[in-house]
Amino acid sequence: MAIITLTTDFGEKDHFVGAVKGAIYSELEDVKIVDISHLISPFHLHEAAYIIQNAYKSFPNGTIHIIGVDSELNPENKHIAVYMDKHYFICADNGIISMLTAEIKPEKIVEINIHDRILSNFPVLDVFVKVAGHIARGGTLEVVGKPISEIKETTKIRPIVNKNENQIIGNVIYIDNYGNVISNISKKQFDKVGRGRKFVIGVRTTKIDKIHTNYSDAINFDQPSDKRIEGGKKLALWNSSGYLELAIYKSNPSSVGGASTLFGLNFLDSITVNFEPES
Amino acid sequence: MAIITLTTDFGEKDHFVGAVKGAIYSELEDVKIVDISHLISPFHLHEAAYIIQNAYKSFPNGTIHIIGVDSELNPENKHIAVYMDKHYFICADNGIISMLTAEIKPEKIVEINIHDRILSNFPVLDVFVKVAGHIARGGTLEVVGKPISEIKETTKIRPIVNKNENQIIGNVIYIDNYGNVISNISKKQFDKVGRGRKFVIGVRTTKIDKIHTNYSDAINFDQPSDKRIEGGKKLALWNSSGYLELAIYKSNPSSVGGASTLFGLNFLDSITVNFEPES
Amino acid sequence: MAIITLTTDFGEKDHFVGAVKGAIYSELEDVKIVDISHLISPFHLHEAAYIIQNAYKSFPNGTIHIIGVDSELNPENKHIAVYMDKHYFICADNGIISMLTAEIKPEKIVEINIHDRILSNFPVLDVFVKVAGHIARGGTLEVVGKPISEIKETTKIRPIVNKNENQIIGNVIYIDNYGNVISNISKKQFDKVGRGRKFVIGVRTTKIDKIHTNYSDAINFDQPSDKRIEGGKKLALWNSSGYLELAIYKSNPSSVGGASTLFGLNFLDSITVNFEPES
Repeated sequence: MAIITLTTDFGEKDHFVGAVKGAIYSELEDVKIVDISHLISPFHLHEAAYIIQNAYKSFPNGTIHIIGVDSELNPENKHIAVYMDKHYFICADNGIISMLTAEIKPEKIVEINIHDRILSNFPVLDVFVKVAGHIARGGTLEVVGKPISEIKETTKIRPIVNKNENQIIGNVIYIDNYGNVISNISKKQFDKVGRGRKFVIGVRTTKIDKIHTNYSDAINFDQPSDKRIEGGKKLALWNSSGYLELAIYKSNPSSVGGASTLFGLNFLDSITVNFEPES
Repeated sequence: MAIITLTTDFGEKDHFVGAVKGAIYSELEDVKIVDISHLISPFHLHEAAYIIQNAYKSFPNGTIHIIGVDSELNPENKHIAVYMDKHYFICADNGIISMLTAEIKPEKIVEINIHDRILSNFPVLDVFVKVAGHIARGGTLEVVGKPISEIKETTKIRPIVNKNENQIIGNVIYIDNYGNVISNISKKQFDKVGRGRKFVIGVRTTKIDKIHTNYSDAINFDQPSDKRIEGGKKLALWNSSGYLELAIYKSNPSSVGGASTLFGLNFLDSITVNFEPES
Repeated sequence: MAIITLTTDFGEKDHFVGAVKGAIYSELEDVKIVDISHLISPFHLHEAAYIIQNAYKSFPNGTIHIIGVDSELNPENKHIAVYMDKHYFICADNGIISMLTAEIKPEKIVEINIHDRILSNFPVLDVFVKVAGHIARGGTLEVVGKPISEIKETTKIRPIVNKNENQIIGNVIYIDNYGNVISNISKKQFDKVGRGRKFVIGVRTTKIDKIHTNYSDAINFDQPSDKRIEGGKKLALWNSSGYLELAIYKSNPSSVGGASTLFGLNFLDSITVNFEPES
C-alpha cells in the first residue's frame, strides 16, 4: 500500500489539510497518509527542508512526499516531481530539493505538465494529489511531466571554515519544540576540521568544551540526586540528525525557557567553534 | 472501507480526540479516520461551517462527517444524522447544517434516539461514534433515529446588495493560517450583480480595483526580480472556494503580519464593493 | 491489524512525529497509528498520565501505547514494556505507569534490553518502535526485555480527607482546551466521604453547592432564552472521566476567558469540598 506524506505551511485549523486528504482518498482507495508537519512557518523553505530531511529517511523506499510550501505555479516556480534516494518528492521548483541533501543527486526529475487540464490556486489539492495518485498506482514520472535535468539551486546556509582550519562559524538553522537550538555544523565536518583537537564552542558569553551523545550524559548520576545540577543545565550534543545542538537539560520553553531563550539565539545567529592549535 | 472525518473544537492537546478515535476503532475494524480540524474556536459554528463546507466535497461520496462543536444534548439541541449532497453528517441540531450550504437541501434527516441506552456528557464519544459505526456498516438512518423534516436554520451572515444593484457590502467570515481575510462575497454573486462593470473594493483606506485568480498574478514577472514589489503586496483574489479574499503576497502573520493585520480587519468586519454606474 | 498510539511532548511542528511514523511503517506494513497527543508540556508526566489515562480505555484490547515523554535512557530511567489492563505500554520507567491507575496493577513488566544493538538519543524512534513492532507481530515481551517486578512509583497528587471526614481538599490536575479546571476529586471518593450529605465547594471566593451531570443542566431551559443566564455561568460537574470539574458554560478561553482564568486557578491549586455535619 502506498504511503503519501504531507509537509505544508497550511496550519492545522483551516480546511486545507482535510481537503487534500479527502482528495487523496478520492484518488486512491488504499493508501496511508502521514502528516509530517503542517506548521512550517509560511513560505519558510529552510524550515521545511530541515524537517523533511530529518523525517523522510525513516519511511520505506518508494514513499511519496508532497511538499506544500510556496507551491503556487508561476513563471519562476514550476511544479516538479523528483525521484531521489529511493523516495518521490512532489513540490515546486523553488530550491527545496537542493536543500534536502547536498550529497545525493536526484535520479529523475520531471516538470509536471498536467496543468492544461487543471487551473487552480490550490495546486497541492488539484495538481500534487493527481501526480501522487499516478505514482501510487505505479505510473512513471514521464506520463505526468517532461524530463528535465536542471532544478533551482538554493544556497543552503553552510558553515564557514577559516583558512587555518582552526575555526568553524556555523548558524542556527532550527529551533525545536523544546527550545533547543540546532546548528548547521555536522559531526562529519566537525571531525574533519577538528581532527580530534580540543575545542571551545562560543555562543555569546557561554563557552562549552564538550559535546555529548545523549542529553543525560551532562548529568553526573554518581552524585546523590539532591546535589546534582539538572534542570537548566546548558549542554552541547550531537542530535539525532547528526548536527551540533545547544540544549538545556529538560527544558520547557514555556516556563523556564529553552536554549534559544537562555543562550539568546535566533534563526541564523552564529555559533563559533575554535579548535586548539596543533602542538 | 468507510471514511469518517472529525471536525471539533476539542483542541489537539487533551485526550478527547484520541479517545474518540479509540472508540471508532473499537466499533469498526476497517475504517479510515481523517481529522479535518480540531482547532475550531470553542462553540464557533460559523468557523466550523466554513471549514467543513470547504473540505467535505473533496471526500468520496458516502463519507461520514462527525461534527463535535456545541454538541451536548439538551432540550434545544437535539442530535441529528443527515444525508445531504451524498455525504453523511452527524452533529447537533444547532444550525450548522443550514450553514453548510444554502443551495443543497438534506435528502434525509433523523433525530438520533439511541440516547436511552447512553447517558453521557461526551456525546461525540458515546453517541456520534455509535451512529457513525452503524452507518459505516451499511445501516439505515431510520434505525438510529426518527425521521424529521425540519432542522434549525441559522441565518448565515450574507452580503447586502443595495437597491440600485451597484454596491455589495460583505463581511469577513474567516481569517486563515496566512492571515488572509475571506469574505462571504462569492464570485457567483459578484458576477451577477456586477455584470462585467468596473469596480472598486473598499476596505478602510485601501482601494483595490482588480481581483486575481492566483496570488502570483499580482506580480509582474517581466520585471527583473530586484525591481518587483512582492512581499507585502496587497491583493484581492477569488480563493479556491470561490470567495473574495484579501491577501498579502507571501505573508507570514507571525512576522510581517498578514492581511488581517495589515488591512485592520476582524471577523464580521465589512468589505464594500462599488460598481460603476452603467453608461 | 495492530493499533499503535503515540503520546509525546514532541510538539507538532518538528520532524520527530513524522520520523516515528515512518519508522513504524518501515517496521510494519499493516498497522493503524493514532496520535493521542503530541502537545504534552515538555517532561510533564502528570499531564501525560492524565491524558493517556482518559484515552487508552477507548481503544480495543491489545492496543500498543508508546509514551514519548522523558524517555531518554539513563542510569535512573530504564526503558520498560508493560502489559496492564489488556493494553501494552512502552515507555521509560519514570513513574508514569504508576500514575495511570492506582487500582489496576501491571500483569507483566519487562526492562527492555535490546539497547546493545541500538545506540541513540532518540529512543522513541530507535527503541520503542522496534519493541512495538515486535509486540504487533505477536511476539512476547520476554524476547525484548527481562521480566522485572518493581517499577518506579510516583506519588500521584491525591486529595486529602480530614479526620472527621467532612472535608476533601483536592487539587487542580489539568486545565483543558476550554479552560475548564479538572480536579483529582473523583465521584467515587466524593460519594464515599459525603454519604449523600449537603456540601459546598469552595474555590477562592466562589461557593458552589451543586454538581451537575451535563453542562446544560446548569441552564434553565424553561425560561425564555433571552432571560437565561448562559454564557459565563460558573458550574461544577462530573466530567466524562468521573472527576470533579469546574467549568464555565460555553466558555472560550481565548475571548471571554475559561474557568481557569475566571476562577483564578492553576495547576495544583487547591479546591475544597466541605460537607455538612450529619444531624
